[in-house]
Amino acid sequence: MKFVTFTTTDTARARIGALDATAERVVDLTARGCPETMAGLIADGADGLVRAAAAVAAARGDEWIPLDGVRLAAPLPRPGRNIFCVGKNYHSHAEEFHRSGFDASSAGAASAVPEAPIIFSKAPSTVIAAGETVPGFLDDTATTDYEGEIAVVIGKGGRGITPATALEHVWGYTLVNDVTARQLQRDHKQWLLGKSIDGFCPMGPWLATPDELGPLADIRLKTWVNDELRQNAVLADLIFDIPTIIATISRRITLEPGDVIATGTPDGVGIGFTPPKFLKAGDVVRIEATGLGTLVNPVG
Amino acid sequence: MKFVTFTTTDTARARIGALDATAERVVDLTARGCPETMAGLIADGADGLVRAAAAVAAARGDEWIPLDGVRLAAPLPRPGRNIFCVGKNYHSHAEEFHRSGFDASSAGAASAVPEAPIIFSKAPSTVIAAGETVPGFLDDTATTDYEGEIAVVIGKGGRGITPATALEHVWGYTLVNDVTARQLQRDHKQWLLGKSIDGFCPMGPWLATPDELGPLADIRLKTWVNDELRQNAVLADLIFDIPTIIATISRRITLEPGDVIATGTPDGVGIGFTPPKFLKAGDVVRIEATGLGTLVNPVG
Repeated sequence: MKFVTFTTTDTARARIGALDATAERVVDLTARGCPETMAGLIADGADGLVRAAAAVAAARGDEWIPLDGVRLAAPLPRPGRNIFCVGKNYHSHAEEFHRSGFDASSAGAASAVPEAPIIFSKAPSTVIAAGETVPGFLDDTATTDYEGEIAVVIGKGGRGITPATALEHVWGYTLVNDVTARQLQRDHKQWLLGKSIDGFCPMGPWLATPDELGPLADIRLKTWVNDELRQNAVLADLIFDIPTIIATISRRITLEPGDVIATGTPDGVGIGFTPPKFLKAGDVVRIEATGLGTLVNPVG
Repeated sequence: MKFVTFTTTDTARARIGALDATAERVVDLTARGCPETMAGLIADGADGLVRAAAAVAAARGDEWIPLDGVRLAAPLPRPGRNIFCVGKNYHSHAEEFHRSGFDASSAGAASAVPEAPIIFSKAPSTVIAAGETVPGFLDDTATTDYEGEIAVVIGKGGRGITPATALEHVWGYTLVNDVTARQLQRDHKQWLLGKSIDGFCPMGPWLATPDELGPLADIRLKTWVNDELRQNAVLADLIFDIPTIIATISRRITLEPGDVIATGTPDGVGIGFTPPKFLKAGDVVRIEATGLGTLVNPVG
């Protein structure tokens, strides 16, 4: 299933919904007895999914609202703690980031490709919805860059999750743009400040359960800036695959239902070009992946 | 005032309380109409403090419970997002960390002392109370280290806070132990994994409002391991002082009521010794600072 968080008017309280197969219409699950928030639905586990599916099946034709008649929020508008993110997790991007001179984590050529997953975080206050404007004006260093990524949302939590069972802990997948102020990422050494500027994490448009996606390795992720294709890769290109990432984080940190893990970005980010192609006001970033729709955000 | 979060029995719901001047007795503020959580009290701003002071003034003698008859929780048992932390923020510690070989952020001697504040985060799930056992057994790299620190708790939030007004945004101060798995901190480049192991952030014993502390620069912070004094510094030794830290983070990230900022640790951590003195099961770490009491945690 494909789930959204949405409002019907600016003043209405957000609720959760399910999309139809064409992703053109939404049915209000909260109105049909499901939880008010995606976090609540995720916390309900498999039972929550069964109830949601039953609610969809029972919905009358006039309960399906055209998607362009609602306002989408991010699927998880405010995660319960910082978003876990994986750095330099595609071979080609690790090389381009290293060459760019913005990588404070890499002392020499030998360490361009990480030997252990690089995990950092983005504050949950960075999350904005599909269609919302990325406040690029907040980055007065004028080095704002995009990073199209597939994000995993954890369902069943746990510590010591093994790679073999890791995918059983995935509730769903969505798209994020791990927007980054490159100068801050470099100058402050640790990446939190450059990654956590207000509004610097567009997420959505929907959250898809794993059955919507087919084989993970085949998922193709593309990013355009103003209709120019910049990133184009498949998940098979990940240095550390999703089971490995989940096992690495959960080895000593209990993963919680609703945790978001952004799995890294392929090559083709702005600093991969000479000179760098930073985002500027008026640009539009579009990220797309198999089964996950299109996440479009203008830059302000 | 000095505030605590506490329970009277293991099964009771936590509530908030105020300590008397000697920090030997507590009065239940929640029972007297104050919020149930410290986050709630902080959200109430100045009005909340007025009500808390009135509740204390009105408490009868028999409402004061001996502190050793309650079970303390951390003042903020679960912050709303990751704890902001400042790395290498005392000159002497920046040098010792650089020399230790565990600092992935420092490429050469020239960068031992940071030119810009290094800000990273700890997951909020790391927080444990005074007296609770740090689960050192989770660090199978056996490189667990202590970092005694003063933490700031934000009251009034905001973005673009200037150093001149930053202290007006501070609700209070408490102690934290920024427990760190050094090998993970080094090998994963970004420090999140090495800093976010479950239970690796003892906090408390209480949260003191600024009027309890006197001049910040004079606050003396000490850390003992098994009664051996390891750290001993005053806040005047900070490379980036508290107003600068608040201004740096809030420049592009809206600070929120209840945000916790750990301000960094002085020299004398385990990796400052040759060979390093890592924590082992049975050790007891004691952190103390002027006006903030004593935070004692055994290591398990």
